[in-house]
Amino acid sequence: MRTVLIIGVGAGDPEQVTVQAINAMNAADAFFVLDKGEAAAELTEARRALLARYVTGEYRTVVIPDPPRDRQAADYAGAVRDWRDERARLLAEAIERELPDGGTGGILAWGDPALYDGTIRVLETIRAAGHDVAFEVIPGISSVQILTARHRVTLNRVAGPVHITTGRRLAAGWPEGCDDVVVMLDAGLSCQVYRDQPIDIYWGAYLGTPDEILVAGRLGEVIDEIERVRAEARARKGWVMDTYLLRRTGS
Amino acid sequence: MRTVLIIGVGAGDPEQVTVQAINAMNAADAFFVLDKGEAAAELTEARRALLARYVTGEYRTVVIPDPPRDRQAADYAGAVRDWRDERARLLAEAIERELPDGGTGGILAWGDPALYDGTIRVLETIRAAGHDVAFEVIPGISSVQILTARHRVTLNRVAGPVHITTGRRLAAGWPEGCDDVVVMLDAGLSCQVYRDQPIDIYWGAYLGTPDEILVAGRLGEVIDEIERVRAEARARKGWVMDTYLLRRTGS
Repeated sequence: MRTVLIIGVGAGDPEQVTVQAINAMNAADAFFVLDKGEAAAELTEARRALLARYVTGEYRTVVIPDPPRDRQAADYAGAVRDWRDERARLLAEAIERELPDGGTGGILAWGDPALYDGTIRVLETIRAAGHDVAFEVIPGISSVQILTARHRVTLNRVAGPVHITTGRRLAAGWPEGCDDVVVMLDAGLSCQVYRDQPIDIYWGAYLGTPDEILVAGRLGEVIDEIERVRAEARARKGWVMDTYLLRRTGS
Repeated sequence: MRTVLIIGVGAGDPEQVTVQAINAMNAADAFFVLDKGEAAAELTEARRALLARYVTGEYRTVVIPDPPRDRQAADYAGAVRDWRDERARLLAEAIERELPDGGTGGILAWGDPALYDGTIRVLETIRAAGHDVAFEVIPGISSVQILTARHRVTLNRVAGPVHITTGRRLAAGWPEGCDDVVVMLDAGLSCQVYRDQPIDIYWGAYLGTPDEILVAGRLGEVIDEIERVRAEARARKGWVMDTYLLRRTGS
C-alpha cells in the first residue's frame, strides 16, 4: 500500500500555505507533477520555490509526461476519456516505481483540491483500476478566497446563496435564483453580455502572485478597462488566469 | 488611522492556519472578540489555544460585550439593524481606545471571512460611520473545504457549477440548474425533504475539531443515521455546527 497526499497549496503566495500543508510536504518521499499548458514553466518554478522554502529534508520530484492526445478522433468524449485513463496509468506506474511499499507521495494542487482541480479524480481512477494506492486531501486557499480577501468583500450577502460557475455556463445564461455569482475557467470575460445590467464586478488575475491585478466597479463602467488590462497582461506573460465575482444590485 | 486585520483561521484545527494568518496574528497589538452564542465558551478556548501556539510576543484580548437586543420590537428588521449598528459602535470605540494611532488590531474569524461571516460587514459599518479605521482580510480554510477534503471528494463535477446556500433556502426549493449544492447554517437537516431522490450526501459536523463526525452515502439510506448522531452530539455538547454537500446523481 502506498499513500498519496493531495496538498492544496494556495494560488501562488507562499504565505498562503497552511501548517498542515507544510507538514504534509515534509511527510512526502517524492512529489509527482502533472502540470501542463502555457503556465507550466511558471508553475514549475513556483512549486520549486514552495518546496525549497518549506521542505527541510531531501525530496525528489517526478514529472509525469503528458500522454499523446488524439484531437482528430470522431469520438471526442471517448478520446478525452482514453487520454485521462492513460494519464492515470502513467501516474500509477510512477507511484509504484518511485515509492517503496508503505511510502508516501505528494502532489501539490494549486488552490483547493476540491475546486476545479482534477487531481482527486485521477487518484479515484487509479484506485478504480485496482491499484493499492490510498490518498488524503489537504485543503488549500483557493483563488476565489484570495479574490474576496483582496477586494475586502464577502462572497455571500446576509444569509444569501452563492453560485460558482464557469465562463461557458455564464455565457449560456445567468444562474437562476442567485444574485452573487463567481465565475472561473472563463476564457474570455463572458460577463460582457451583462454589461448593461445593474451588476458590480470584483475581478482579479494572477491572484496571490506578484503579477496580481485587481479591478472592481459597476460592470458597465469597468468592463472595458478589465478587457484592456487582461489583454495586455496576457500578451506580456503568454497566459492569463483570472476569476471574478458578479453581484447583482438593487438598481 | 488604525488598521484591523480580519484573520481567517480555519475551522478549529490549529494546523489549518496559513503562514500569512500566523504573521498577521504576530502583527496585531490587540485582538478584538465578537463571539457569542452557545459555542462561545469552546470558541474562546480554541482562540486562546491558537494565539498561545502562534503568537511569539505579548498580546491583549478585548471582548466586545453584546449590546441588548429588542426582540419584542414591532419593526423587527429595524431592531436588528439598530443592534448591528450598536455592536459596530462598541467595536469602533474599543479599537480607538485600545489601539494607538497607527496601531494594528486583529479579529480572528472562524473559517473564511468571506463566507457566512459578519466581520467584514461590521468593519464596513464602522468605516461608513466615519471612523478612521482601515481593514485587511486574510483568507482562511472554510468548513466547506474541510468537508470535501475529509470526504476526499471534489466540490464541483467536471466543469460543473456549485451552489452554496442555507438550510432555510434549501427547504424552500432545490436550486435551479445545479446538481451540486452545499448547505450551511442549517438548523435542522432541511435536506430530509429530498430523501426519496437520487442524491448523495457528504455530511460533517464540528469539522476540523477533535469532535469531528463524518457520514456519507445515498441520502435516503443515511439521513436517519445523520439525524441520530447529530442529535446525540448536540445533546452531549450543547450545540452543533454542521455542513453538507448534496450531489444529485443520474439515477
